[in-house]
Amino acid sequence: MSILCTLCGAMAQEETGEFLKLPTVSPERGSSTMQALQNRKSCREFSDRELSLQDLADLLWAANGLNRPDKHTNASGKNKQSIEIYVCLKSGAYRYDPKANLLHKITTSDLRPAIADWQEFAAKAPVSLLVVSNLSDPLYNEKEWQLLPAYDAGIVSGNIYLFCSANGLGTICRTTMDRNRLKSALKLTDKHMLHLNHPVGFPAPPMQNK
Amino acid sequence: MSILCTLCGAMAQEETGEFLKLPTVSPERGSSTMQALQNRKSCREFSDRELSLQDLADLLWAANGLNRPDKHTNASGKNKQSIEIYVCLKSGAYRYDPKANLLHKITTSDLRPAIADWQEFAAKAPVSLLVVSNLSDPLYNEKEWQLLPAYDAGIVSGNIYLFCSANGLGTICRTTMDRNRLKSALKLTDKHMLHLNHPVGFPAPPMQNK
Repeated sequence: MSILCTLCGAMAQEETGEFLKLPTVSPERGSSTMQALQNRKSCREFSDRELSLQDLADLLWAANGLNRPDKHTNASGKNKQSIEIYVCLKSGAYRYDPKANLLHKITTSDLRPAIADWQEFAAKAPVSLLVVSNLSDPLYNEKEWQLLPAYDAGIVSGNIYLFCSANGLGTICRTTMDRNRLKSALKLTDKHMLHLNHPVGFPAPPMQNK
Repeated sequence: MSILCTLCGAMAQEETGEFLKLPTVSPERGSSTMQALQNRKSCREFSDRELSLQDLADLLWAANGLNRPDKHTNASGKNKQSIEIYVCLKSGAYRYDPKANLLHKITTSDLRPAIADWQEFAAKAPVSLLVVSNLSDPLYNEKEWQLLPAYDAGIVSGNIYLFCSANGLGTICRTTMDRNRLKSALKLTDKHMLHLNHPVGFPAPPMQNK
């Protein structure tokens, strides 16, 4: 079942707004870690094929899911766990809630063009992840720790790359994006920092020689 | 063969100084990517067991090796590939050369205490990796790109974590270290930025209840 089919039919109503429950992570899929490292690369050409909802759930777990009750698949500086992942699809944009394993719907707008900005190839990926820090913790006001959120975001990017590489998906880590439009559309505060985005999709097949 | 045995016997002489050729990466080892993500955690207690030279070679390749003639296992912003990895062992400190797959010896001093600084547990790991950026490229003078090196370093850290998790090794990503002592001992320039360090070893067995 593709993400779009699922999202059209399965959004549930909660007091706090619409949400979509994600399927449990599938632990057996994909290649070995060494193979994922061997095949790690950046993808700039995506096919039209949609990810399944299981693909999306597993991708999000790899990026920033919980692998213990109170710890993530990624490390974070001073264990502040300040990373939030936003998911941009054709059907709208969502915030990933790792603890509840669901997506909170924020808008029905397709924000992938705002992520792509002037690099049109990036809007063709069916999924774009936004790696964001919530800098509410006063620690981040101290100069000594000002790079921690960027290191944290990089670690998440590493996880996304290796998950995609292990599972036949293409991705690329980008800092280009229309930050003002995204901050406004995603209702982010001044304490949120947009670090990186990761368009994700199936790589387009190589062009045949004619 | 442990790293120490090998380093005592096998350092070769080059015009530019001593170096140690690393074995070819072993592509078949370790767990799946999903399993590595599931087991990813930070380790603060290391056993006395040494890594083998093969372990070290594979760890370095995962961190910053080449998986194509001109590309790395990690992504780098604007493809600047400015990350350098330094290896600190009891026998001395070395710079990893991914293209030649060897270690250049820099000093015979044990710099692990300078990496550990006041956190003594970190000096007990047999290997410590230093993740450094070489910021010689003028791009890094532009404000727009100033966080790129930190993102790059984070991606490398993610790779190190998942390699260790997949291969039964423990590690932790740290920003604490005696930067002045390390910069001087490793002969780094003002263009080098010390980002992160990763003590790596086999985790100490859990304490038995008495």
